[in-house]
Amino acid sequence: MASRSPSRTIGGELALIAAIRRQASRGVAASRAVRLGIGDDCAILRPRPGYEICVTTDFTLEDRHFRRAWHPPESVGHRCLARGLSDLAAMGAEPVAVFLSLAIPARLPARWVERFMQGFLSLAKRHNVTLAGGDTAESPAIPGSRAGLILADIVALGQTPRGKALLRSGARPGDRIYVTGTLGGAAAELAALEKSPRGFAGLTEAERGHPHLYPEPRIAVGRRLRGLATAAIDVSDGLSTDLTHLCEASGVAASIDQAALPVDPLAREGTDAIHLALDGGDDYELLFTAANGARVPRRIAGVPVRGIGEILKRTRGRDRITMQTADGKTVVVRPCGFEHFR
Amino acid sequence: MASRSPSRTIGGELALIAAIRRQASRGVAASRAVRLGIGDDCAILRPRPGYEICVTTDFTLEDRHFRRAWHPPESVGHRCLARGLSDLAAMGAEPVAVFLSLAIPARLPARWVERFMQGFLSLAKRHNVTLAGGDTAESPAIPGSRAGLILADIVALGQTPRGKALLRSGARPGDRIYVTGTLGGAAAELAALEKSPRGFAGLTEAERGHPHLYPEPRIAVGRRLRGLATAAIDVSDGLSTDLTHLCEASGVAASIDQAALPVDPLAREGTDAIHLALDGGDDYELLFTAANGARVPRRIAGVPVRGIGEILKRTRGRDRITMQTADGKTVVVRPCGFEHFR
Repeated sequence: MASRSPSRTIGGELALIAAIRRQASRGVAASRAVRLGIGDDCAILRPRPGYEICVTTDFTLEDRHFRRAWHPPESVGHRCLARGLSDLAAMGAEPVAVFLSLAIPARLPARWVERFMQGFLSLAKRHNVTLAGGDTAESPAIPGSRAGLILADIVALGQTPRGKALLRSGARPGDRIYVTGTLGGAAAELAALEKSPRGFAGLTEAERGHPHLYPEPRIAVGRRLRGLATAAIDVSDGLSTDLTHLCEASGVAASIDQAALPVDPLAREGTDAIHLALDGGDDYELLFTAANGARVPRRIAGVPVRGIGEILKRTRGRDRITMQTADGKTVVVRPCGFEHFR
Repeated sequence: MASRSPSRTIGGELALIAAIRRQASRGVAASRAVRLGIGDDCAILRPRPGYEICVTTDFTLEDRHFRRAWHPPESVGHRCLARGLSDLAAMGAEPVAVFLSLAIPARLPARWVERFMQGFLSLAKRHNVTLAGGDTAESPAIPGSRAGLILADIVALGQTPRGKALLRSGARPGDRIYVTGTLGGAAAELAALEKSPRGFAGLTEAERGHPHLYPEPRIAVGRRLRGLATAAIDVSDGLSTDLTHLCEASGVAASIDQAALPVDPLAREGTDAIHLALDGGDDYELLFTAANGARVPRRIAGVPVRGIGEILKRTRGRDRITMQTADGKTVVVRPCGFEHFR
């Protein structure tokens, strides 16, 4: 990875591991919880006494979660890690370590991997999380072709005090429903960028404020919600889908208020703002519930928090989620969130 | 997954998750260490007080680690999990939980996934390890084609008493070198099976004794090596490569004795027995060192253990690994182990 020539390719699995390890060792100070990192059969983690371990894994597959022609490599690396960190945030966990499994085609320029790792490690550094291991492989060549796809899988491990993790299953009738930040921004940015692919690949992490390319996992918010929220989930598939997941896990129903939804400015520009806010994926905000009467601040860790509805008792024949529209009607909200690229 | 018709395909990501969860819940009793399994943003693990967590991840990619036309699905599932468990064995760790990320093509028969999971869960059950989560996705269709590849990534978590994990880095000059089981059997079986692909796909787990299709991770041996071994690694890439890794991590050299190598009977049948034993991959035996004079049993947990050489001081100009041949010569051993399918 010493050369920056874009025509240079990674020369094998060991070279790739060495390049990633060099870049990782420059980027992030080793966490005290990581006793042994990259280089043995396993990494060894030493969680704090009295803490439990939260574990999540998330694929990032080319042509499914990103397109090489559309997404800058830094964005792919950032989003790969953000998916895992957002799951930790939804549990109220503090990140301990992440593991990256990465398969790349033989002919991928080394510079692509370097930029991917820059996006990945820059986000890791901000959240003080160590890249402690993973796997690497040459991506299989496609039969009848010499091409291969970029395939990544992120494993994120965090810790929470014993019994304090936020679950999806804790919401009770009467609880209020809250969401952080804004909704629909990522889907709106994606829709806009699809129409102008030329500008897409040039957007680097330096230019923040891109909810699709560089979503911000709500780690600090999640930790502050311990003891306050009764249930939590991250908005990865879209509000309609993720609120359904939360309600199913809790055995409850929900009613939300359209006027209260914090629609992202990017989504408000179009005609389908409410669809983007309800069904747009990849926002990585936190959706949580708190007891009616609990004091929920308007901002938590600097992020706006908005009350959007309430948890209802689940009864036979009643729809799972309903919404009060701006003109006073009640409509049914179905889970029709996020679809992968087709 | 209720239907067993081979023409039935998995009808989307949620159906795949539900099918895997149903199969997993039938197969394995939940471990006490797994407080929360499949179904929330993260799984929650509660390691034993005073224990550390070992973590490893390993890809299993179609056309790289297996071929759909060659390997029975049960073997692919078994080997996927065995790779992770073998890394835990090499640390002396007891398994706590595993996570499976699985991407499958839209048109893959449901029966393939069911048989894959049977192989996976059968091995998990024998080692009392819980499938606690993971990710699923539809594998990206290949551009210009409707096909896609089966992609899996296994995450295995284990626990060891604090400070007791076996590392690659603990070997010291004078230590003796040992290996469990036999070497070269997996490579020999693969070579034989490549020549008769018809018989290949029909070999199910019921017929044991297939070192390539159904390797046995040495979990029980690894646990017994705590406090006895000074260093350990699993033989996944081949003895020559993995002994090199161990020596590099420990800053030492090694000499091995050809006559002492436990060549697998399958490998002995051919003319290149010593090459298979030195360089064949996927044996998943344990290679370890112990102090000279330490009492190392001839069998550990029912598995034969053989002394094959000794650790030497690393000096400038001396080759890393040498071997005494049967006819009294000294030859240099280079790491030329395992290559993935091309």
